[in-house]
Order: sequence, then structure tokens, then C-alpha cells
Amino acid sequence: MIALASNNKRVCLLGGGSFGTAVARIVASNLSNSESSRAHTFHPTLNLWVRRQSLVDEINNTNENSEYLPGCPIPSNVVANSDVGTVLDGADVVIVGIPHTYITNEMLKAVKERCNQSADVVHVVSLVKGIYYDEDSKVLTRVSEFLDQSLNAGTTKGHSPKFVISLVMGANVYDQMGRDEFAESTLACPTPDDAPMLHSIFHDPDRFHISLTPDVAGVEFCGILKNVVALGVGYAVGSEWGSNTQAAIIRRGLKEIVKFAKTYGGDMVEDETFFESAGVADLMTTCFGGRGRRLASAFVKHDGKLGWRELEKEVLGGQQIPDWHNAQMVYKFLEAKGSTDSFPFFCAVYRVGFQNADPSLILEVLKI
Amino acid sequence: MIALASNNKRVCLLGGGSFGTAVARIVASNLSNSESSRAHTFHPTLNLWVRRQSLVDEINNTNENSEYLPGCPIPSNVVANSDVGTVLDGADVVIVGIPHTYITNEMLKAVKERCNQSADVVHVVSLVKGIYYDEDSKVLTRVSEFLDQSLNAGTTKGHSPKFVISLVMGANVYDQMGRDEFAESTLACPTPDDAPMLHSIFHDPDRFHISLTPDVAGVEFCGILKNVVALGVGYAVGSEWGSNTQAAIIRRGLKEIVKFAKTYGGDMVEDETFFESAGVADLMTTCFGGRGRRLASAFVKHDGKLGWRELEKEVLGGQQIPDWHNAQMVYKFLEAKGSTDSFPFFCAVYRVGFQNADPSLILEVLKI
Repeated sequence: MIALASNNKRVCLLGGGSFGTAVARIVASNLSNSESSRAHTFHPTLNLWVRRQSLVDEINNTNENSEYLPGCPIPSNVVANSDVGTVLDGADVVIVGIPHTYITNEMLKAVKERCNQSADVVHVVSLVKGIYYDEDSKVLTRVSEFLDQSLNAGTTKGHSPKFVISLVMGANVYDQMGRDEFAESTLACPTPDDAPMLHSIFHDPDRFHISLTPDVAGVEFCGILKNVVALGVGYAVGSEWGSNTQAAIIRRGLKEIVKFAKTYGGDMVEDETFFESAGVADLMTTCFGGRGRRLASAFVKHDGKLGWRELEKEVLGGQQIPDWHNAQMVYKFLEAKGSTDSFPFFCAVYRVGFQNADPSLILEVLKI
Repeated sequence: MIALASNNKRVCLLGGGSFGTAVARIVASNLSNSESSRAHTFHPTLNLWVRRQSLVDEINNTNENSEYLPGCPIPSNVVANSDVGTVLDGADVVIVGIPHTYITNEMLKAVKERCNQSADVVHVVSLVKGIYYDEDSKVLTRVSEFLDQSLNAGTTKGHSPKFVISLVMGANVYDQMGRDEFAESTLACPTPDDAPMLHSIFHDPDRFHISLTPDVAGVEFCGILKNVVALGVGYAVGSEWGSNTQAAIIRRGLKEIVKFAKTYGGDMVEDETFFESAGVADLMTTCFGGRGRRLASAFVKHDGKLGWRELEKEVLGGQQIPDWHNAQMVYKFLEAKGSTDSFPFFCAVYRVGFQNADPSLILEVLKI
């Protein structure tokens, strides 16, 4: 029997898309697993925010999300709700699994006001790979920084919880996770004392093997920038350049990821991070099989005459991906910093995608 | 006009297989290129040793190697010969491009006796990825160490040249090189003062971009051990495990490559090496598209009932690859060292391939 003491931590997840649902299946299983509850006590329910009521009903009534993760049973302790406040009520751990462009002020207000107000710390775990760039202030903000700033703004100690932002990122294609195939991932938690508790929420030795690091910036930059690299590989595929050239592109991309993360990610960025699942493993998976690769290949096949939104419709049935948005943000930031020369590959990806440069510009960069 | 001063360095290449021929095309072009001759003066002929006279005749008469690199023109300054001594006559740089199992004592003797006897140093550049393991002495010897020991044994200073062994290795699939597609590679030269001269022999900015490192052991271990990792990925493919699991295998393999190289490669092994073309780029290319992957996948499909030599016949038309040989040598060495527990992935690859272990052993290792 699972103890239901009042100090059991409550966990919720925002987002019922493909990846959110895949993670929900694992987290829910861990929350109801008495073994993991021994060390850390959790309320056995995973509250799941899903925007559309029809999907809420399907998940609660049939234990399936047929639209985003068909054929993959969802544990019965997942309770979906379309009201974000209700889902957040009393939460000690909030997992954010929606695209960063869908994170609204209303949602952030609900996180601040509805999560466990008597806790010293509420953990927010972002699954979201994204960045914001402000053209006026020329500041690049990772999603975890945005969440940190938004949620901790105006917080007075003793009055409301401090929000600690962690990340779970890795080589995690959702449909394989839905089939319970083995995957590994990286949990970046800035407060190492809390890492074991969060680890027990996500880690499943048989299907979701989690490694720990305190390096939030390194992990997040890997997640953001690998999408830029994947576009470069896609240009190569569209140009019919073979695996030697593609490998050279990925390697050059990795070198610029490391340099970018170390230059703009602060002193905490560690070499070890790039050997984690969120590093080289996710980079490979994304570059060899990701949607950005397919999109950028189609971009070249159309001689750059179809816009990225149109390509998403043609190639991905309208699914929106962050890759080309990230390429834009990174370029604009580097341009404002006067640092385009230091990152010629990232800039070439942008110039091909947005300034009508010929894809062969990628090769010119490799020859430097 | 190219100056033909007597101090022009003579370059030869041993091996007219697919990769040897692909490299010969690039080197020959550089030797006859007056621009590269400005800094370092080379004799414009590339002497090429090819075992079979019929192939010698084809290369010299038609400028093609239709058996191993069909459709790829060979520069006319490549002069093939089936007599290894003639090819080696007066050589200052000997490029070795034959499988290490084909390097005979007779050949080594010819290198010692026929290369430029008046030179202080003769450079041997190995393109060969291989290891020897001696069961009696329990010593693991990389090809470059074997060449060093064999060629410098009994050499008295002042009487014969010192042989310096370098390597050229990277993500270099030969047929793409034959089509002049852009590739990059890593030149590991233990004597940095000589590196620019060797660089000018191999580097072609448009199709073979060479990075330099002094880390011979790191580069060579990457080249040897990536083949072991590729077998692990092949087991995954044969078992129909998806990209998440494959990425986890490659990542785990990379971690063991780094650990192995640092443990057994000496103090010169550098972290940077793993980010070179010979490191992560070659690992990716081999694991996603190499022959070892295909062979190991077929091994699993046959439930481990076909031997590796038989599989080579069935899958590769009899082509012999080093992957499973390397896995054996590495395992035997680790077993003799009592270090199997420190390299569970490499050992699992061996146990599946040679001790009837179930492929799921690979997953068990990932869960550690």
C-alpha cells in the first residue's frame, strides 16, 4: 500500500502532446510504484493538463491519447484536466511539456498561485527546447531562464515558494518511448540535493535511464543548438552530399555547440555534458532522423523557394518544429554580439535558410 | 614547372584497394600541384604498390582501378608496380594502406632497406585500423606501435633512418572520396615539426580537409574501437530496437572508447581528439552506415548461428572487415588485465558475438 501522508509530493505535467504523453506514461508509473515511494513519497496521481476537452475525456475514459501517441496505454493514475489551475493545485513538481511559444502569462500566473504555497521550493522540470531573443535588449533567453525569471519575479522569501528550474532532455524519440523501448536521458538539476528526488520521478531502469548533471545551461544549449545543426545536415541531404560530408557537418556543428555553450552559458558548463544523452546522443539522433533534417532537405530540393511554414505543411503535415526558429534567434543574437565570425557554421545555416545563400556555403565553412 | 631537385621528397603508397586508391588520387594530385610544392618540394610521382600485375597494368594503362574504385580517374603521375622494393626505392614518405594482416616481414624488410637511406627520418603514415594481441605476453599492440617497433628495431643512429609513424584516419567512406565529395580527416603526427610537410601531402581544401594532432594513440584507438561499437549498434538493428536505444549504445560506446584510450594510450591522449574527424565523426559514420553494423544485424537475424566469416560471405560478398576481430582482441586483452568490469559494453559485444550471450545483454549493460 502506498502511504498517503499529507507530505507526499504532488506532481503534475503540462502538455498532452506526443512527448508529454510519452513522459507522462513513465512518470505515472514511477509515482504509483511503491519501491520508488520508499525513498521519496509522492502522491500517486499524475495530474495532466491537456488543452482540449475531447482529449481530456479520451485519456480519462480510455487510457489512450489516440491523436498524439496512439496504441500506447496510459496508466490509470494519470488524471487529465483542461483547467490548468486545477492541475497545478498544490503541486510540488511541475513538469512543463508544451512548446515554449505556448507558455502564456496566464499559465505562469497559475503556476505561481496554485502550486504548493506552503513549500519552500517548487520544482519546475522543463522538457522544452527553446529560446527567446529580444531584439531591443539583444538578450538571448533559454526557456529555463525565462521560467526562472517569470516565476521568481517579485517572490519574497517566506511568502511564496522559490521555483527551481531543472531539465530533462536526451535522445528521446516519443513513439519509441511509447513502445517502451529502452532510451536514456539527462536530468539537469541546479540544486544537487534535490536531484535524487527528481531522478526517482523520471528514472525507469528498463525504459528511461536518467543521468544527472548540475549543468543546466550546457544541457539546454545542446537541446537548442542541435536543431540548427540538423538543418545543416538537411541541406547536405537535399544537395545529395554523402555521409563523409554529413559527418563533417555534424562534427563542425558539435564544435560550435561546445563553443557557444561555453561562451554564453556561464562557468557551470562542463565538458562532460557533451558526452551525455542530451549532448552527442541527441545530436546524432536529430541529425540522422529528425524532422529538421527532412525539412531542410526539402528546402534545398525546392531551391529555397518554399518558406519554412509552407515546408512544414508539405513535409510534416503542418507540425511546427523549433529548428528554423532557433537558427534565426541564434543568428540574430550572434549578429548583435558582433560574433558571427566566431560561429561560421551556425551563421551559414541561417544564411542558406533566410538570406538566399547557396547551400554550398556550408561547404565553404567546412573548408575554413 | 615543377623543380626536380634531388632533395625533392619521394612519396609512395602501399595498397591499391578501395581506400588506398581513393587516397592515392588525392595525394598524387597534391604532389603534382606546384602550389603545395612551393613550401615543401616533392617528387611529382606517386609510386603505388599493387599486388596483382593485372591491376598494375590497368592503373598504368587506363588510369582507373575498375575493381576497387570504378569510374574514378587516377592521376597520370600515379605509377603502379607490383614489386614492393621498386616502389619503396628512395622513399621519404611511405603511406601504408593495406589491411594489417597483410603486412609481412618481407614488406617491412623492404621498407627498411629500400627507402631513402640517406635521410635522417623516413615518415610512415598508416591508414590502417588494426591491433595485434599476443596471448602469451598479454600485450595489445596498435599497428603504429607494431610498425614503430618493427622498423626501428636494430637501427643504429647514423646508419639508417629513424622511422616516424603517423596516421591519417577519419570519417572517410572511399566511394564518396572517389566522387570527390568533401570529407575531412585527422592526421596524427607525433613530431609536430614534421606535421606541416605531411599535411601538405594529404590536405586538399576542396575534398580532403585535414586537421592535425600529435595524439597518435587517441586517434588510433578511436579507429579501432569504433568498430566494436558498430557491432553493438548492429545487434540493436537486428533486434529491431529503435534510434533511442541505438543512440544510447553509441554514447555508451564513446564513453568506453574515451576510457580505454586514456587508460591504455598513455599520457598523450587528449580530450580534443574525440571531437576530431577520427573521433566522433568516424564513430557516427561507422555506426550508422558501416559494414560492421550490417554484419552484426545479420548475426542477430540468424540467431547467432552463422559464424562471422560465413556472414561476411553472405552479407559482404566475402569482404573481410576488422570489426569482429577487434572485438575479440579487445576482450582478450581486458580479460587478461582483469578489467572486464570496467568496460562492460565492449565485453557485452564480445559475449554476444562469441559466447552465445543473448543480444539483450547489451541492454542490461546500458541499464547499469
